Amino acid sequence: MTEFIPPGTRYHALPSPFAFKRGGELRGAQVAFETWGTLNADASNAILIVTGLSPDAHAAANTANPAPGWWEGMLGAGKPIDTDRWFVVCVNSLGSCKGSTGPASVDPASGELYRLGFPELSIEDGARAAVEVVKALGISQLACVVGNSMGGMTALAVLLLHPGIARSHINISGSAQALPFSIAIRSLQREAIRLDPQWNGGRYTDQQYPESGMRMARKLGVITYRSALEWDGRFGRVRLDSDQADDDPFGLEFQVESYLEGHARRFVRFFDPNCYLYLSRSMDWFDLAEYAGGDVMAGLAKIRVEKALAIGANTDILFPVQQQQQIADGLRAGGADAQFIGLDSPQGHDAFLVDFDRFGPAVRTFLDAL
Amino acid sequence: MTEFIPPGTRYHALPSPFAFKRGGELRGAQVAFETWGTLNADASNAILIVTGLSPDAHAAANTANPAPGWWEGMLGAGKPIDTDRWFVVCVNSLGSCKGSTGPASVDPASGELYRLGFPELSIEDGARAAVEVVKALGISQLACVVGNSMGGMTALAVLLLHPGIARSHINISGSAQALPFSIAIRSLQREAIRLDPQWNGGRYTDQQYPESGMRMARKLGVITYRSALEWDGRFGRVRLDSDQADDDPFGLEFQVESYLEGHARRFVRFFDPNCYLYLSRSMDWFDLAEYAGGDVMAGLAKIRVEKALAIGANTDILFPVQQQQQIADGLRAGGADAQFIGLDSPQGHDAFLVDFDRFGPAVRTFLDAL
Repeated sequence: MTEFIPPGTRYHALPSPFAFKRGGELRGAQVAFETWGTLNADASNAILIVTGLSPDAHAAANTANPAPGWWEGMLGAGKPIDTDRWFVVCVNSLGSCKGSTGPASVDPASGELYRLGFPELSIEDGARAAVEVVKALGISQLACVVGNSMGGMTALAVLLLHPGIARSHINISGSAQALPFSIAIRSLQREAIRLDPQWNGGRYTDQQYPESGMRMARKLGVITYRSALEWDGRFGRVRLDSDQADDDPFGLEFQVESYLEGHARRFVRFFDPNCYLYLSRSMDWFDLAEYAGGDVMAGLAKIRVEKALAIGANTDILFPVQQQQQIADGLRAGGADAQFIGLDSPQGHDAFLVDFDRFGPAVRTFLDAL
Repeated sequence: MTEFIPPGTRYHALPSPFAFKRGGELRGAQVAFETWGTLNADASNAILIVTGLSPDAHAAANTANPAPGWWEGMLGAGKPIDTDRWFVVCVNSLGSCKGSTGPASVDPASGELYRLGFPELSIEDGARAAVEVVKALGISQLACVVGNSMGGMTALAVLLLHPGIARSHINISGSAQALPFSIAIRSLQREAIRLDPQWNGGRYTDQQYPESGMRMARKLGVITYRSALEWDGRFGRVRLDSDQADDDPFGLEFQVESYLEGHARRFVRFFDPNCYLYLSRSMDWFDLAEYAGGDVMAGLAKIRVEKALAIGANTDILFPVQQQQQIADGLRAGGADAQFIGLDSPQGHDAFLVDFDRFGPAVRTFLDAL
């Protein structure tokens, strides 16, 4: 794998050992992070961003790395998350391959990669690791914890496991528990990787790499991250030019197929397959109901936060807006001033990455009122 | 492959040669079909049923085969398609492996299976083959042509290519053209089969069979045939009993995963992979706009039929109800008395196979008024 960690990434050493929720522990582990803006004297202006499955910590350009980040439209001076006011920390998820310790890291006990010897990763482990970074930066209470997609799960775990860690919360296209449609999709993505003979029980190399499985997994991801509505307008039934089309009788013919292929090719060598399996499975396992006798609303109501915003796209099929509505309702039941907004973005689950015209004002209005 | 053709299946020999829309032809080809009820003296009470991708011609129990069929709740004496009144013909699609000639049939020219030497199959070819059966039965005009899913496409092709062939039409969860979300899903299903090394360019055997690819394709199908809403109620986050769960660390854990696995296992050896590829691709190619300068509504308006009903499930993500609305609108523009009904079935695209409480009355009311 061509592991690409953005320049300027910083690292925080986790307590060693760092125990996992489901058992096992890491020694000498680290979390990668980046920051924007300046922490004020009483450390009251800090925002933590926890991410979806694949992003690194480089959410936007900063002094250490002026290259645009994956949330460039949302984060920066004068932007919805305004770094003239806020000190922002974005962490790369524990278990990822973008600088934080994960299955693609070297196990110091053996000198070999962890691979499937990595402990069973839960969303809660990533949440605890993120909070270690926050504390190390001298922040005892965040102004806000912002989580997108998988990060929406991580943020809820941060809040539940660390009462008082944040005054407010923005949950974007997240959920309080995985539901069967999303579990089914992710299960199939993992199966595609595991079925690739080159996955080889996790013991692949750069030369013998599960490229087909990763391509399938990514294509299925992209299909479910976007929406049929967007694609109707974007691709329709447009065919590839004859020089782009595949000679294979069942090969690429329509633009939408080529779009998926392009996405898949850009992804497969830039994300570690075992890390993908671990992070994907951690989402399936996540369920706030575990903390409240099987009642997810009661689990949400255990969270103490002053203000919350749960937003999502009405076209999201992977984390449907009913799940963001539930987060707002549950946090409100726990005493928060909580609001839900379902946005008419056509881009489905990925809308928060591209539809800054809709997501930006919602985030800006919430943060400006803090 | 364990090719299973229901007992009592009848066969009609197609004209030889039988030319295909995109070129190529079949010699000595046949279409499998079954019938229910009695054709009246002036042959005015006939209904043709054209099916989705996988069903055989055994839509319901009949004298030749009393076993229940795949549309048992819809078809029979006193049922919504009432065989006390109607003479019903169901054809197995050309290109399938359930009795009609397809890629898994023997090419008489070579004595070998066609495999990828089968001509490029279009929906229109299946439509023409179905009409050959109708004519052979002494029916010059159908009372109604009923098409489900892919059969909804086939039915529209029947009507467009054979003006006057039917007085009325019921289109169930069908569409007048494939749109990019559905194309993307089907493209990925085909890719899963093609990537399986055992597919071997279509030259698999019973011993070297693309079982993994077919399982993946079927699971993706089942995911998109049903709806998230139904699964939330049906599976929730229920886990498998420990004795059912997989020992594999990334194996089956949730009921929804086991459900998919069961569906896939029942399918993979009962449907021919090459037939699946051909039929799947034929849906991607289907577009009534081809017949009207790129305007799908104008293509629909070219169809001459007196009455039409287009129905579907509001939870269908593969053939969304907007496509059935479009069919009704387009046929109305062509002069038909056409009605659209979007049903609140929770079962998604597959609802017409199971939700007889909703689909039954709609079909019955339409047919009773003929």
